[in-house]
Amino acid sequence: MRHAKTLEALSQLLPGRLSTSKSDRNLHGRSESYFDLMPPDAVAYVETTQEVQNLLKICSQFECPVIGWGTGTSLEGHTSAPRGGISVDFSRMNKILQLNAEDMDVLVQPGLTREALNIELRASGLFFPVDPGANASLGGMAATRASGTTTVRYGGMRENVKALEVVLADGQVIQTGNRARKSSAGYDLTSLLVGSEGTLGLITKLTLQLHPQPEAISAGIVAFDSMQQAVKAVIATIQMGLPMARIEFVDGATAQAFNEYAGAEMRIQPHLLFELHGSDASVAENAELFCDICQEYGGAGFQWSALPEERTALWTMRHNGYYAVLASRPGARAIVTDICVPISALAHAVEETHADIARSAISGPILGHMGDGNFHAILLIDPDNASEYRAAMQISDRMAERALALGGTCTGEHGIGMGKLKFMEQEHGLAWEVMRGLKRQMDPLNILNPGKLLRQN
Amino acid sequence: MRHAKTLEALSQLLPGRLSTSKSDRNLHGRSESYFDLMPPDAVAYVETTQEVQNLLKICSQFECPVIGWGTGTSLEGHTSAPRGGISVDFSRMNKILQLNAEDMDVLVQPGLTREALNIELRASGLFFPVDPGANASLGGMAATRASGTTTVRYGGMRENVKALEVVLADGQVIQTGNRARKSSAGYDLTSLLVGSEGTLGLITKLTLQLHPQPEAISAGIVAFDSMQQAVKAVIATIQMGLPMARIEFVDGATAQAFNEYAGAEMRIQPHLLFELHGSDASVAENAELFCDICQEYGGAGFQWSALPEERTALWTMRHNGYYAVLASRPGARAIVTDICVPISALAHAVEETHADIARSAISGPILGHMGDGNFHAILLIDPDNASEYRAAMQISDRMAERALALGGTCTGEHGIGMGKLKFMEQEHGLAWEVMRGLKRQMDPLNILNPGKLLRQN
Repeated sequence: MRHAKTLEALSQLLPGRLSTSKSDRNLHGRSESYFDLMPPDAVAYVETTQEVQNLLKICSQFECPVIGWGTGTSLEGHTSAPRGGISVDFSRMNKILQLNAEDMDVLVQPGLTREALNIELRASGLFFPVDPGANASLGGMAATRASGTTTVRYGGMRENVKALEVVLADGQVIQTGNRARKSSAGYDLTSLLVGSEGTLGLITKLTLQLHPQPEAISAGIVAFDSMQQAVKAVIATIQMGLPMARIEFVDGATAQAFNEYAGAEMRIQPHLLFELHGSDASVAENAELFCDICQEYGGAGFQWSALPEERTALWTMRHNGYYAVLASRPGARAIVTDICVPISALAHAVEETHADIARSAISGPILGHMGDGNFHAILLIDPDNASEYRAAMQISDRMAERALALGGTCTGEHGIGMGKLKFMEQEHGLAWEVMRGLKRQMDPLNILNPGKLLRQN
Repeated sequence: MRHAKTLEALSQLLPGRLSTSKSDRNLHGRSESYFDLMPPDAVAYVETTQEVQNLLKICSQFECPVIGWGTGTSLEGHTSAPRGGISVDFSRMNKILQLNAEDMDVLVQPGLTREALNIELRASGLFFPVDPGANASLGGMAATRASGTTTVRYGGMRENVKALEVVLADGQVIQTGNRARKSSAGYDLTSLLVGSEGTLGLITKLTLQLHPQPEAISAGIVAFDSMQQAVKAVIATIQMGLPMARIEFVDGATAQAFNEYAGAEMRIQPHLLFELHGSDASVAENAELFCDICQEYGGAGFQWSALPEERTALWTMRHNGYYAVLASRPGARAIVTDICVPISALAHAVEETHADIARSAISGPILGHMGDGNFHAILLIDPDNASEYRAAMQISDRMAERALALGGTCTGEHGIGMGKLKFMEQEHGLAWEVMRGLKRQMDPLNILNPGKLLRQN
């Protein structure tokens, strides 16, 4: 049995909480994506930082891979175990440890999900804005440098993680950052660890920046005659500096999927879904300015969601976009692409992507966080049809290459994992070697999430 | 002669642009602070990335220290050459290379100053907000992770540097980041290098995030009966989420210095200096809300600066605070402290600092970026009076220790350099060792700005 000594030592460390059952291993060996099953040898249900320290000491000793696990909503194979090892499941470390309402920050454990956090925060007048759609764990969101619908206004995990507790490969624990709003004290290790995908350490605590719940919220949808007109309206909005809290694009195919999946009654046309946060007066003023911009680009059929329930329904529908599109072709699997480009190149990138998909034999609704220049195509394939898989990968690869040619990035928010490894050389050149050097320094045995993010040789 | 071989090779690389004159070396061996003169062996006036690459190859070969130089406005001895070596003066690399107005970003060389950049941007409708007071170089500001008066609204260098070109210790050049608004593609090397104080590489290009010039700006000052009332008004403003563009505190002693140095007519009382950016309507609305908050804490004597010239005069006065305070005691030298604490601890930290100063034999006006929880005492000492120096260092040390005890940081924006080395262990613990590991990995010969930021053994 692979890693037998590790498993023996860990079963003593975590009595009753080290699972080697096939179902548990299989659950932790796949995620919501197209990667083949790559199960770990065991799943460790940790409960304390001390346990994570001891686990890493044991795994260092026996050179056994260690993969962090939050909720398994990664789309690029981050949680797969291509070399076996231990999946460290943080779902039992899901507490709020300290809410500092006056300072608008909160100390949490990594297994807490963003929705659970926001439910707990309701009475505080504060909220945590980063919103990748899925109800991901906050540790996983930090590890992936996630962002989402509200990033255009509030930033993503990069901007909203203030401090971390991290267990290093050798079991030592460090604190990075502090609770002040800024600091110039040495290397920004917090930023280095956010987005490191579990390859430099395991996050055991996070201090997150919170924001005041806005006094007024206004949300709605508006339809456009063409994708390009909708994208141009977004670009004009951003360039004018309008403080949109959300500005999301969905194409006609996504609108159709929403109608079928969620009982929406949208025109089969490109739409923007938007939200404004602020005082009553500022929201009203900015809503008017946004309407003017949309109308300039032919936007029509404005529908406003005045009631909280309506807004929740709108964003639930948006967040279920992936499932809605998936349901539009029963039995299909989805390859979700994810590129981010400078705003000036957004219309071009979306149009070319759309043309690529139209030329192919597969369908691929486009939607995204257009205010950031970040969008996705949800490419639907029959998992048993190799030519559809190839077609999807070709579209996905062309998107990433186009993004790089336009000065953007091969991933706006999903991360590298295994799926985007092939673009790292092209995107970073020699800087990818620097990343490998940092990795070697911090994890010389390469036990932390091997096979991800870094060059594999 | 120390480093003779390096000097010989460099004088061939940079004919007429390698200075070993005493005046040049002395100019580059001190900064605007209290450190003793520590001159480099030569000053290299570089003009291209290629020259910086060749310079670093030579300095690697001969293990000669290399210290980046922007404008010399560092306050913690960053530019001093305690081990000699080459000061790399970037003042000739001061061009704007590419303005992407649609994407609101700009590619610049590191020697360009923030004021020069903003003058060039005037016609574009955009501006670069980070504003540390001094007319620092943008490369130096990035290296120090600088921030300033507008950080409460726009963030500091951490938030506004999108991408870098960096020459590594061995002369290799890397690109970090990209022009998209966000990315999850691998380790955030840009953030690692911002704030690394020239110890990991030399910045040769920066891509900076710009912001739309606001439609309306309103600025002014308001007086308070006590420091604590003023600080409480700031805390309430931040906690309410009012989007202040600037919210600066000065105490009565600073107000007096302004009156004497800049001909101001301020009451000898604590004041807030503030600015709002936005649309006409939102600025008016927020100004009213801010007035209400101030009045709640006894704020009085509001003066509004409606005209651009008046606003410029107001912020010029603020930015010259250091010089105004320095002029209040002719012949004195200043030790400028710099701590940042969670907002909830701000009143306590300011009050205790004030009490420490009052108990001492020296004067030390207090001013700062209160919206970030960041403030400074400008401790005035007679450079020939050892007991005054000791008293100042004692106050400064107590401030830093208090900041750490309150969950803050020993430096909000001035950096570590040599001056704050003694707090790194206490602030970071084992994480400081991690920084040293990264440094060893990226600069194994320790030629990049040795003696700064990292443990010195």
